Amino acid sequence: MHKKYEPVLLLNTTICKANIKNTTERIKQWGGVYRPHFKTHQSAVIGEWFRQEGVECITVSSFKMAEYFVAHGWKDITVAITATAVHTEVIDELASKVNLNILVEDETTIRLLEMNIKNPVGVFIKIDAGYYRTGINADDLPQIKGLLNLLKSAKNLIFIGFLAHAGNTYAARGENEIKKVVKPSLDKMLALKAFLKDNFPLMQLSWGDTPSCSVYTDFYGVDEFRPGNLVFYDYMQTVIGSCELKDIAVCMAAPVIAVHPQRMEIVVHAGAVHLSKDRVELTNGVTSFGKAIALQGMIWDPTKDIGEVQSLSQEHGVIKTNKEWINSIKPGDLIGILPVHSCLTANLMKEFLTTDGNLIEAMK
Amino acid sequence: MHKKYEPVLLLNTTICKANIKNTTERIKQWGGVYRPHFKTHQSAVIGEWFRQEGVECITVSSFKMAEYFVAHGWKDITVAITATAVHTEVIDELASKVNLNILVEDETTIRLLEMNIKNPVGVFIKIDAGYYRTGINADDLPQIKGLLNLLKSAKNLIFIGFLAHAGNTYAARGENEIKKVVKPSLDKMLALKAFLKDNFPLMQLSWGDTPSCSVYTDFYGVDEFRPGNLVFYDYMQTVIGSCELKDIAVCMAAPVIAVHPQRMEIVVHAGAVHLSKDRVELTNGVTSFGKAIALQGMIWDPTKDIGEVQSLSQEHGVIKTNKEWINSIKPGDLIGILPVHSCLTANLMKEFLTTDGNLIEAMK
Repeated sequence: MHKKYEPVLLLNTTICKANIKNTTERIKQWGGVYRPHFKTHQSAVIGEWFRQEGVECITVSSFKMAEYFVAHGWKDITVAITATAVHTEVIDELASKVNLNILVEDETTIRLLEMNIKNPVGVFIKIDAGYYRTGINADDLPQIKGLLNLLKSAKNLIFIGFLAHAGNTYAARGENEIKKVVKPSLDKMLALKAFLKDNFPLMQLSWGDTPSCSVYTDFYGVDEFRPGNLVFYDYMQTVIGSCELKDIAVCMAAPVIAVHPQRMEIVVHAGAVHLSKDRVELTNGVTSFGKAIALQGMIWDPTKDIGEVQSLSQEHGVIKTNKEWINSIKPGDLIGILPVHSCLTANLMKEFLTTDGNLIEAMK
Repeated sequence: MHKKYEPVLLLNTTICKANIKNTTERIKQWGGVYRPHFKTHQSAVIGEWFRQEGVECITVSSFKMAEYFVAHGWKDITVAITATAVHTEVIDELASKVNLNILVEDETTIRLLEMNIKNPVGVFIKIDAGYYRTGINADDLPQIKGLLNLLKSAKNLIFIGFLAHAGNTYAARGENEIKKVVKPSLDKMLALKAFLKDNFPLMQLSWGDTPSCSVYTDFYGVDEFRPGNLVFYDYMQTVIGSCELKDIAVCMAAPVIAVHPQRMEIVVHAGAVHLSKDRVELTNGVTSFGKAIALQGMIWDPTKDIGEVQSLSQEHGVIKTNKEWINSIKPGDLIGILPVHSCLTANLMKEFLTTDGNLIEAMK
């Protein structure tokens, strides 16, 4: 329950629903399926806003999150973290209830799952298209074929296609750089599809990440899209070039606890346990943990720039500001902070206070 | 509830209880009161382990946390975050039940609280002894005297003394550097006490931070100590020089989901939503998000060094390792990760699986 003297994460429902609607329409134009990643909001209520736009298939980042959304009526779920044999039971349990897709990338896991799973489950092979985190290198055909051969003879592991998360777009700055990162990664996936389509005509390509789905358009050949962050966007996405400050749907209402004119610093009660310690390097060399802006009641105004959150400890945030703000802001005031990484902020806060006055809960 | 395929934060009760006992004994030798900061564990059960060592006074980092520990029978609580007028109601409510101390650092707040509070509450003036976050500069006597004059005539705001958090010790590396940081900060506090003791003979000095309370010893004149982190310690504290790896009481059990021999990388399901994105720069220039070590059942062994967690995304951690480990670790194995910052990790996990087999909950 929100306590009024604690920081609270405000959610502008108009911006959020517009982000959902815009993405749905863009992806429809590309001829693909929108399978949004729900790890960003982790909330059944916000999930319904997607359902109102016709979304039926979703992505989650853990089996725990899959269980939560199954409990809230979702019937078609991809768990976008590589599965291993420790997940056997939960995969079988979920696959008995809904259309479940999992990610695999090693032979032993496929063998062990096939041996123990009783219900059919959709399987994506996780492909690394240049992010270098998980997945098989897109050009490692021998390894990919090895997995495909195993899956061919599997009874309950139904090969669906290849899935990639182009997280390497997060290092891009600006629309052109994003596009330059996306093209070669996407080309690798398309080549893979072309090369194998005779043997697997129904094979799908699943593609993720908010930067590419925000600014790229030439997605011919991709079957589904899994961006998550763009439901809220955040300060980092503005630095990458995926959106503008006005597109950010969440803002921390942070109580000011101290003002230090001699250092031009405002200290707020909003720290690492509220915002997360994710950071972004700005073009001017400053490391920011959040963008501080003016807040009036429930309404924040990104054109009224107070300054950068330049350090965070457990409960405190320190904002560097200028003469104008240092003289007008007092202890006890509330200011707004646009989070660097809204997924991590939402995960910490676990609830949202909407601009139309509702308290929305997320997965606890 | 812990799910066995999810990462879980293991807690070694022997190490944890030894950390509590050692600190209690050290502080007894210094002739001070131990008022541990409970923000690190946020758990009623772990709080009882302190009670068993005779601890009766505690520190918390938010009013919400004060309410939690009041509900669990604690009667003497300092809320170590600067209070403002927005806290009026919760201060009055808590002060009606327990011995509550708050922190102030501006005149307007004192005036507003005094006007509206009906129950006596202890007041520390927050002093900045060199950390430059909150508090009045220790040498700004005019401002300090201004607050003291206001407090003198206040009925329900009872001046107790000066409180400082020497968070600047976190930038130190090694015992000698910690001591070099502590001495001038502490001297400022002692000078303040000496200067004002004729007018305020009962005035207390309250001192915090784990690095100084771990390696400094010459605390003559300090009345109470509020270290929090040392109940668990963490990887960052080993880099600072407050403890050794064997003193760390918590370890993430992280399921391995992928192994990449060509990059010498192990990918685990343990990301920013489990460990937090706090980081530490090692002396070799590497930025670490956690120290990966061998884990056998519930027992971790810090001498079996797998490598550094070199990147973290929402659910994934990537560990750089060597030939030996890359060949022996397989998807589905569990490995241990000593967190960089145990306070933030515990805050994210909200439960502990103890080495004696109990699941302990923390504040939700």
